[in-house]
Amino acid sequence: MSDALALLAEIDDVGRDPRGGWSRPGFGPVADELRAWFAAQAEAAGLAVHPDANGNVWAWWGEPGPDAVVTGSHLDSVPGGGRFDGPLGVVSALVAVRRLREAGFRPTRPIAVVVFAEEEGSRFGVACLGSRLLTGAMDPTALPAEAGLPHAGGDDAALARIGRFVELHVEQGRGLADLDAPIGLATGVLAHGRWRMTITGRGDHAGSTRMQDRSDPVVAAARVVLAVESAALAVDGARATVGRIEAVPGGTNVIASRVELPLDVRAGDGGAVRALVAAIEEAGALEAARNGCDFAIERTSWSDEVVFDDALRSELDGVLGGVPALPTGAGHDAAVLAAHVPTAMLFVRNPTGVSHAPEEHADDADVDAGVDALERVLRHLAS
Amino acid sequence: MSDALALLAEIDDVGRDPRGGWSRPGFGPVADELRAWFAAQAEAAGLAVHPDANGNVWAWWGEPGPDAVVTGSHLDSVPGGGRFDGPLGVVSALVAVRRLREAGFRPTRPIAVVVFAEEEGSRFGVACLGSRLLTGAMDPTALPAEAGLPHAGGDDAALARIGRFVELHVEQGRGLADLDAPIGLATGVLAHGRWRMTITGRGDHAGSTRMQDRSDPVVAAARVVLAVESAALAVDGARATVGRIEAVPGGTNVIASRVELPLDVRAGDGGAVRALVAAIEEAGALEAARNGCDFAIERTSWSDEVVFDDALRSELDGVLGGVPALPTGAGHDAAVLAAHVPTAMLFVRNPTGVSHAPEEHADDADVDAGVDALERVLRHLAS
Repeated sequence: MSDALALLAEIDDVGRDPRGGWSRPGFGPVADELRAWFAAQAEAAGLAVHPDANGNVWAWWGEPGPDAVVTGSHLDSVPGGGRFDGPLGVVSALVAVRRLREAGFRPTRPIAVVVFAEEEGSRFGVACLGSRLLTGAMDPTALPAEAGLPHAGGDDAALARIGRFVELHVEQGRGLADLDAPIGLATGVLAHGRWRMTITGRGDHAGSTRMQDRSDPVVAAARVVLAVESAALAVDGARATVGRIEAVPGGTNVIASRVELPLDVRAGDGGAVRALVAAIEEAGALEAARNGCDFAIERTSWSDEVVFDDALRSELDGVLGGVPALPTGAGHDAAVLAAHVPTAMLFVRNPTGVSHAPEEHADDADVDAGVDALERVLRHLAS
Repeated sequence: MSDALALLAEIDDVGRDPRGGWSRPGFGPVADELRAWFAAQAEAAGLAVHPDANGNVWAWWGEPGPDAVVTGSHLDSVPGGGRFDGPLGVVSALVAVRRLREAGFRPTRPIAVVVFAEEEGSRFGVACLGSRLLTGAMDPTALPAEAGLPHAGGDDAALARIGRFVELHVEQGRGLADLDAPIGLATGVLAHGRWRMTITGRGDHAGSTRMQDRSDPVVAAARVVLAVESAALAVDGARATVGRIEAVPGGTNVIASRVELPLDVRAGDGGAVRALVAAIEEAGALEAARNGCDFAIERTSWSDEVVFDDALRSELDGVLGGVPALPTGAGHDAAVLAAHVPTAMLFVRNPTGVSHAPEEHADDADVDAGVDALERVLRHLAS
């Protein structure tokens, strides 16, 4: 087993979900255990651990200071997520740093490994929470004022220390698998928004109400879900997902009165996302009306498309001897940082293409190729 | 305000649901408060209160004994239910008994008012739990062995005391409203079964998985819900309802791996229900396969159609001077008892036709008409 996979195996029991995969929400006992594990590993590797007041943890090789080469990812997961999304970037960074130290490498500028808080948004519904707080993209007063929750917000001093940021991540699609390449560099991230759709009908008795007398929002919601699929299939490269359907009150023998559905939409640029959601809004209202229901939609989050630093990507492509360049539909802390500092992402091949699920995978050899690449990148950037 | 509505108003604050209506599950603090309130009201009316070991509460006028005239209903509700389903039968019984006592009526046989436990099945998923336990139709060992939960099961002594059972209930459809009649007598209850449908797909990342690469069980579930509606619309008088959709893991940025949907089906007789579910099973498998998903269906409960005692209904129809006779799609404790003792049901007009929702309604005058009818019926049966 490679060193990186051996490190991953150490946290295999943390946040294991009996329904399958891992459920590791940000903050709380599971997150605390993962932070403590990371701090111990980083210290064992000779790094100095500094938690910040936004829930992120930094581990420094050399005095924290400007022009640092920063790498890392996150340890939290979606509910029922896979083994690699997030942790692979963290363990690869730890192993790359260990190898550089063992090889006697002397960096000319500080190197840091960072674990960002709550990247998946599974606790507070805000993806990339830690990096958004750090960069001032999110106001911490929007979070509950509880002990242990982040409260600092925009941290210009921390941001000013980052010279370049490189995040290694398992690929979350079949891009590298289709190209038969173990690693690649990201070009950018699709524009991405989330909405809440609400369908209002009329609650009633499941036994005594004739089918033709109903205004059943569950049936209307089914029509809306199919309209979402159709609208997304019509736009090249776009993705639209309903991951949950909440019927209120939700009794087995009750016709629901209301249904709420989150909607996740991504496409090549913001205009394409907005056009797709406009199409969904129009179709949703028509479809809901077929069952006598009302339809409403409200945006809950928004991320413009991100283009990673072209010069940095070319430079790293040279260091790595030429690897495929590819976009992604997934959000990342790297995409939040890209608005502030030169940022790059290394992807590791995922043969299943599946992510956010237990089938997410990376072969041993590809994990090693990722660590090797990250080691070369860090050596290059810190020389 | 009529006496019955004044009694109903006393429990208006118990189990009020902030999302609308009332949520009064069986057993637990809300049920305990309702039982205590009923016991106090019954004692104030001069009745002797005897809880049984199945969670039901009996209030006796006269020594508990054979050939009793029993009336009553239930106080629990579905989540977000209406004001009348259950409680109307209980308060009408209390008021009818009070009036008979005030009028100096001397029953020739005992009269009892009963409150059955957990009629809606909202806590343990078994409708008419109290009456099913009492009649031996359900084994109490299927319930958790906790203090305060019923444990007795078949209670032949209690059953043997019931000479005739009459339940007054708000109508849960538009039958009486369409006939312009304040009260009616039930002919029977539709056959009724519940099933659990499971749709299995492949969990994946909502951002990076192309639409055409997905096996999304939420989209498949939407197709199945529409197939259920179509199948039910094709059978005269049949009803099929999906009141809840549970996606696993249920993240907003996760393509679900599995969806579970309860299915509630009712029709004129058991054969019609089985044929409808067979049609749903066939269509469900085809529809789920269109999104690369598997479909499974499993029965969780079953009630044959019930025909109430024809002789008793004719007798009461005479007492009431001729009222409409109509079937219902809703299950009732009366339907459970009908297999053991002559049983009748009085319905009170519901102008909205809505039930299991806050819009469930009965006008003051119709509530009074119901109490008058129940008083005449009790006087007749106990003379």
